[in-house]
Amino acid sequence: MKFKKIAYYLGRMLLVGAVLTAIPVIVSLVYGDGCVLSFIISAAILGAVGAGFVLLFRKNITSLSAKEGMIVAALTWIILSVVGALPSVISGAVPSFTDAFFDTVSGYTTTGATVLSSMEALPKSILFWRSFTHWIGGLGILAFAVAVLPKDKGSSTRDGSAAATFAIRAESPGPTFGKLVSKLKFNTQILYLIYLALTVLEISLLVCGRMPVFDSICNSMATMGSGGFAVRDAGIAGYGSAYIEWVIGIFMVLAGINFNFYYFMLIRKFSKALAMEEVRWYIGIILASVAMITANIVSLYETFGDSVRAAFFQVSSIISTTGFATADFDAWPGFSKTLLVLLMFIGGCAGSTGGGIKVSRIVVMLKTGIKEIRYYMNPREVRAIHFDGQPLDRAVITGISSYFVVYMFLFAISMLIVSIDGHDFTTSFTSVAACFNNIGPGLSKVGPASNFSCMSTLSKYVLSFDMLFGRLELFPMLVLFSPRSWKK
Amino acid sequence: MKFKKIAYYLGRMLLVGAVLTAIPVIVSLVYGDGCVLSFIISAAILGAVGAGFVLLFRKNITSLSAKEGMIVAALTWIILSVVGALPSVISGAVPSFTDAFFDTVSGYTTTGATVLSSMEALPKSILFWRSFTHWIGGLGILAFAVAVLPKDKGSSTRDGSAAATFAIRAESPGPTFGKLVSKLKFNTQILYLIYLALTVLEISLLVCGRMPVFDSICNSMATMGSGGFAVRDAGIAGYGSAYIEWVIGIFMVLAGINFNFYYFMLIRKFSKALAMEEVRWYIGIILASVAMITANIVSLYETFGDSVRAAFFQVSSIISTTGFATADFDAWPGFSKTLLVLLMFIGGCAGSTGGGIKVSRIVVMLKTGIKEIRYYMNPREVRAIHFDGQPLDRAVITGISSYFVVYMFLFAISMLIVSIDGHDFTTSFTSVAACFNNIGPGLSKVGPASNFSCMSTLSKYVLSFDMLFGRLELFPMLVLFSPRSWKK
Repeated sequence: MKFKKIAYYLGRMLLVGAVLTAIPVIVSLVYGDGCVLSFIISAAILGAVGAGFVLLFRKNITSLSAKEGMIVAALTWIILSVVGALPSVISGAVPSFTDAFFDTVSGYTTTGATVLSSMEALPKSILFWRSFTHWIGGLGILAFAVAVLPKDKGSSTRDGSAAATFAIRAESPGPTFGKLVSKLKFNTQILYLIYLALTVLEISLLVCGRMPVFDSICNSMATMGSGGFAVRDAGIAGYGSAYIEWVIGIFMVLAGINFNFYYFMLIRKFSKALAMEEVRWYIGIILASVAMITANIVSLYETFGDSVRAAFFQVSSIISTTGFATADFDAWPGFSKTLLVLLMFIGGCAGSTGGGIKVSRIVVMLKTGIKEIRYYMNPREVRAIHFDGQPLDRAVITGISSYFVVYMFLFAISMLIVSIDGHDFTTSFTSVAACFNNIGPGLSKVGPASNFSCMSTLSKYVLSFDMLFGRLELFPMLVLFSPRSWKK
Repeated sequence: MKFKKIAYYLGRMLLVGAVLTAIPVIVSLVYGDGCVLSFIISAAILGAVGAGFVLLFRKNITSLSAKEGMIVAALTWIILSVVGALPSVISGAVPSFTDAFFDTVSGYTTTGATVLSSMEALPKSILFWRSFTHWIGGLGILAFAVAVLPKDKGSSTRDGSAAATFAIRAESPGPTFGKLVSKLKFNTQILYLIYLALTVLEISLLVCGRMPVFDSICNSMATMGSGGFAVRDAGIAGYGSAYIEWVIGIFMVLAGINFNFYYFMLIRKFSKALAMEEVRWYIGIILASVAMITANIVSLYETFGDSVRAAFFQVSSIISTTGFATADFDAWPGFSKTLLVLLMFIGGCAGSTGGGIKVSRIVVMLKTGIKEIRYYMNPREVRAIHFDGQPLDRAVITGISSYFVVYMFLFAISMLIVSIDGHDFTTSFTSVAACFNNIGPGLSKVGPASNFSCMSTLSKYVLSFDMLFGRLELFPMLVLFSPRSWKK
């Protein structure tokens, strides 16, 4: 492994991070909230370190290996989160570094879990920054960098695209994203244009619903990034508008859809878009869950329409891993709560901005299970598992099962460490579920009416790293922390 | 599939069941508790149906296929549980059939979960019967049948052994049991002799500790079968003896060890026994868990020795999936509770009487996960996964991952149905964990100080079938209930 190479690519990423961190300066100037300096300092740190790395190590740079790509990805997210926490600390908005770090990781990883009890007490630029990290994290910091960085000349162009491939493999959600990029020669710029267009559309619709412009921008970034940070203490319920709830509910669903779908729509391959198996399952799971939860909570609401809206908003919020809440679903009956916890694990589609295990993995595992039952019924009958009409490679299927196994081990270890705090079992379980799957709120002490301030410092760091593990799909972080990676 | 063949082998199993069900008649006569007739009726039903099936379908019987073997296994357990519930119902000891069925399934599957609040109110013969079903279920009803049935002459001897192989594959715990039987030509009679010897040893030790003989017999059968039904309302704590707690604690550990170990000891291959990887992991997990829980609960107990004893008893009870309780561990701190819940999923060794996922599967999955991380670090490096020093076949590894996937799906579905009752999340989660892994008590409403009477009829049946799914290692039940099995 070449440290110089890693430092070079890391430097490039940090330069992009510096530009992004400077953007809230504009917001701070507009609102005069006194946070200008804190953002400039943070951006300057990233810029200086990034420029230093690039200038020092720019010579004889070759393309990254898979392992090195993963390490660059993991380090980028960690460093951006550390430096991204500084504006809150320097400005005094969030005095504790641990809390600010937790919040920034939660932002970049599009989790939306917070340790802060009052949003309205925060400066506007900090509020904007929190939602903006969701939006950056939604499609992945590295994919973002690839989209905005100018291509180098000559040999480094190849390197750039190699880095991009690993970057996207390493941090974009789901197992089929790589296929999308390579097969369709999908341009990350087009990807971000779709993302931008959907965000702008949501902002417009929210402004039409009389949401203040600032709130519309923040909430739309949080929605499309499947983040979930609120800008009001009462969350989305604070706007008291059924129209707003429906708009955000629908856009959360849209954020959780495989972006392949929009690409197919854009190039007018409608039948191909509508045939996408993962999207069909995703929509099917949403409809079935809304129906079941509505039936379960109908007696709690005045009208049938209210219960449908509440069920739809919460289902789309959880399965897309956004984590907005309009209702205290911790007060809902046991069945609804259990179903919502299960949806946390499913998560959005691969190639969406959502977290969780991903619909495609769940579907492939379901088919693996059915195949296993058939094997016991007739050991001679060997059938391939199909997805989107294509037989899946055995390595893909084994990889998904292994992913699940590693996922559950990390989940168990995290839960055990968090439980040292002495919380009830539901709190320990759902706090890890909510962070690992990048949702936001869990149940009990970390329910939607509460926040993560009850956690100890140790638990806050464990949960922060759970968010990073979940967002980066486990392996980049595992490779980074594996002692074997750093030998020789 | 041949219905006649299935009926024939099922008939043989039911005849064995009839003999077993008649044994408590002796206990009832000794104590004069008036349950003689109810056991005779139950035994007669099994005997009549069994004899009918055997006599009707004894002609031209060929050996069973894997699928048919599984169906025979699944049907045997279900029918024996239904008929085994009758003594309690007929004698009036447990008026509700649902409750009696739940208890009998819990007995045969060595779970030990109960819906009854008072044991001391039950007739002695019913108490004996409950513990006896644990003992029968411990090594598997079919293995038991194979051990006691006389071998048929000529061709049917082959059939008998084929049936035995499938029987043991279908219902004995863990993935490596079949290997044991085939490679070592291990005789199921020797297996049962070891089992019997350990049980008699425990009875003797308990009697030495001044436990009444009846209680010693029942508790020893419940220990060695890793069952967990109590005969006193206060459970094992009711004897108020540290000696008794240590004896039962140690025998619970012994019941969860792969029986290969005892066989190796018996044939004096000590070094081979001590080298068994699964047993080393099992003991290692127990020691580490006891240390961690002791540290966590030490302030709750008067002396350090008391906390070690309480920790050891509870750890061995849960990991061996017995489910005896000497302490209300639901009142322990969150860390201890979470660790115990995780141990529920690990369970005993393969080829032991314990339930759960099994230590060997967990270890192979852990190695699969580590291999996957190494793959990402160096895709060209291909290493086989070793267990007990031997490289594992790829099909075995895939099979274990698939098993885990199916396991988690069934777990999620069960939890969702049980949650319709509206219990808290912890109750829904741990009731399924405790039944599916054949433990007994869970946390919250189904904690050790409580029982499963809070569950609705639907939940009681779901949990009963979870016990059967768990005990038979999923696939026999899935094959039985798959419509494809019954086509044509």
